[in-house]
Order: sequence, then C-alpha cells, then structure tokens
Amino acid sequence: MTYCAAIRLKEGMVFASDTRTNAGVDHISTFRKLYQYGVEGERFMVLQTAGSLATSQAVFNKLQSDINLRSELSLNTVSSLFDGAQMVGECMRNVMANAQRVANDTNSGTFTSSFLLGGQIKGQPPELYMIYPEGNCIRATRDTPFFQLGESKYGKPILDRSVRYDTNVNHAAQALMLSFDSTIHSNLSVGMPIDFVIYENDSLTLPKGRRIEEDDEYFKTISRHWSAALRNTLIELPECPNDYWE
Amino acid sequence: MTYCAAIRLKEGMVFASDTRTNAGVDHISTFRKLYQYGVEGERFMVLQTAGSLATSQAVFNKLQSDINLRSELSLNTVSSLFDGAQMVGECMRNVMANAQRVANDTNSGTFTSSFLLGGQIKGQPPELYMIYPEGNCIRATRDTPFFQLGESKYGKPILDRSVRYDTNVNHAAQALMLSFDSTIHSNLSVGMPIDFVIYENDSLTLPKGRRIEEDDEYFKTISRHWSAALRNTLIELPECPNDYWE
Repeated sequence: MTYCAAIRLKEGMVFASDTRTNAGVDHISTFRKLYQYGVEGERFMVLQTAGSLATSQAVFNKLQSDINLRSELSLNTVSSLFDGAQMVGECMRNVMANAQRVANDTNSGTFTSSFLLGGQIKGQPPELYMIYPEGNCIRATRDTPFFQLGESKYGKPILDRSVRYDTNVNHAAQALMLSFDSTIHSNLSVGMPIDFVIYENDSLTLPKGRRIEEDDEYFKTISRHWSAALRNTLIELPECPNDYWE
Repeated sequence: MTYCAAIRLKEGMVFASDTRTNAGVDHISTFRKLYQYGVEGERFMVLQTAGSLATSQAVFNKLQSDINLRSELSLNTVSSLFDGAQMVGECMRNVMANAQRVANDTNSGTFTSSFLLGGQIKGQPPELYMIYPEGNCIRATRDTPFFQLGESKYGKPILDRSVRYDTNVNHAAQALMLSFDSTIHSNLSVGMPIDFVIYENDSLTLPKGRRIEEDDEYFKTISRHWSAALRNTLIELPECPNDYWE
C-alpha cells in the first residue's frame, strides 16, 4: 500500500509520499513514489502515485522519457497544470489498457493507479490535481485544500482538523508529518522513509526536498511532542458528570 | 456504514456503536446496532454489529427470540462467552447462507456481517470476542485490548496511542468518544447518536448505558477541548531547524 498527500495553501504547497510497497507481507520494498519535474524560473511540478507500482513506474518512465527526448509535448512543455494532469491521465490509461490486453485480464482493478500532480507554471496560479484511475481529474480549491491517496483514513482526521487554505506552510508540513506518523503507527503497509517537498508559491524554484528517514531527529521530536500532548490532553479532559454513564 | 468498537480493560469494559445506516447517500436511517443481554448478578453481555443490516437484525432477532422462548440454548444459558461467540457465528452463517440461497446470489460479500461480543459470566473472567463473517472468532488479550468494526481507520490512531489494558475505564471511554468524534468529522457514513455501555468488571450488573445525542453537552465539551488542544499543540510544536527543508 501507500500513503501520499499534497496540500495547496495560500503561501505554498506541501507534498509527501511514503516509500513502502508490498505484494503480500513477505515482499516489502522501498520505492520512490514522488517525482519532481520543472525548469528553474519557469515551471515546477511534483507527481505522486498510489496503486499498482508497475503501472505507476511505467507512467513515470514515459513522462521522463518524453522530457529527455525533448518531445514536443511533455511535462516541460504543457501550457497549463490542467494539460499536465490530462497528459498523466492519458498516459496511465494507455499503460493500464496495454497491461490488461497483454495479461488477458478483464478485472479492471488489477493494474490501477492514481496520481496527484501539483505545481506552478510562470504567470499562472499554483494548482493541484487528483487524477483518477479513469484518467479524469479534479482540482484542489480553497474549500478543499488537500488531497490524499492510498491508506488515507488514519491520517485524515488530523488534516481535517488543522489544515485550511490559509494555514501557514510550516504548520501544514508539521500536520502532514504527524498525519504520516499516525498512519505508520496504525498500518504496517505504510513505512518510512517519507519523501517531502515544500514549495513557496511564485518562487518557481525547484526545491531539493527531504527524504525523512527513520532516525530523523526532528521527525522523532515532533512525534514525541505530539504523543505526549495527546496523552496529557486525554488525562486533563473534563471529568464526566456523576450520573453521566448511569 | 458503521463504526463500532469495544475495549476490554483491567477494571472494566467499554462498548460503543454509532447508529447510522445507509444504502446510498439518499437512504440514511438511524438503527440501533448495539444490544445488551444478561441476568442481573449472573451474566452480562453486549453484542455489536457492522455490515448488512438485514443479516445483523435477523441475528439479533433469532438470539432474542431464543431468550424469550427460554430455549435450552440461548445467550442466557451458554456456559461461556466463547460458546456465546460460537452461537452468534453459527446463527450468522445460517442467516447469510439462507439469504444467498433465496437471492440466488453467488457473491459472498452481499449479506456479510461482523460482530463483537463482550461480557462476563459469574465465576469467569470478562471476555471480548470479534466474530468474523465466516463465523469463527478471536478473543481480545492484554496485548490487544480493543476491537473495531466498520469504518475503523479514522478512529484507530487515537486508540492506538491512548488505550492499554491497564488504562482507567473513564479515560478509555473518553478516548473512545474522541475516536467517534474524529470518525464522524471525517466520514459521512458514520453518525450520531452513539450507543455507549460501560461495565465494571465483576459487578455482574446490567448498566443502563447511554445514547449520546448530537446535543450532548459533555460530548460537545470534550470534543471542543480536544480540538483546541490539538490546534494548540500544533502551533507550539518545536520549529524545524533552519536548513531542514532546504
């Protein structure tokens, strides 16, 4: 499984993907599931994925090869993020259809992937898209500033409670780290390291991003703080009225 | 959908079930999904369910009718909680098999339910069982003091972080209320009111339990406290080192 999420805020964007893949519990590996594209000063994009690793990697390969070959149409040339999302969707549909044809598999779920594409092109606003296995997509708005893929439920409450469109970028990044921490605690199929990228709107720079490893001191620090604060909060909750439970 | 959970602690047990059922988003109703059985001073049991409401209600009806008819074998006569769990499992298997036969439906998922059965019989320790759709069951232990059914992922992190076998019963009940609060915030298919039952080990009394409605003052109070504490904790987390994100 996978957990990944992306947030589009007033002042910036935050992207994070775990790196665990598994085919059964005895075939667990680490794979990058977040890739960055762009041209310094001109465009910046992050593409994240969940689902069939074979489909996802084929899509990443095709998109990268289009860039390397300087094709007329690639993520480095599309005129809008929306066109980029369409390109990813079409590429995924082709890969899936081909895999199903070759395998003679009529189960439409077998080769399914989903993607998040976020970023900014010079002169345009920052945008974030969720691309469905069917190839169509939706865009994040002020009302719905974040998208998640994969094992998203464990880590959703903390984002629901703490992330709004005008949330500070660093606070949103911390909330997302804790969202991953909760998910990793509760579900074996999501694991460290986590690939993080933080983008400042209109900077049009390509941030290096950070791979947060298991021994990351800052991650461990805020995880400890969070656990301790939750425990203390629970202990200090108002006592229930005497006749409450009866 | 449904969310229900039960916790078996050193000093007592806590049971909670939501009451929302839905067949599509335009057919939402309120149904009790937690029932209590027992004989004051002799035995106490709580049965909770998730899954096909038709299957679950048929099982509840059969178990209740066995009690009403003073059948030789009923939840009021079984000699152990394990035998009770077996009885629930067998009853469910019969109901499911019958429904599939009548509907000529070969999809084994259509009529599926799961159950939690917890309680205590005089002279025996308190026990808690999860009964799978296949009819077999597992028992809660000191290492694994709680079980959940249905939409369990949203509310799992808070239980994972805060509930141990030796946790105080009132704190576990508060944690479970917040686990429901998080789930209801993040998922439309789980809704108030919530049926709660709290049992003190070895009391062998039948607690009245409480139906927590939307306007429940204490529930609203701890939900507010929790939200505020989470927000404050997030704001007060240690700042990340200067070169952390790069």
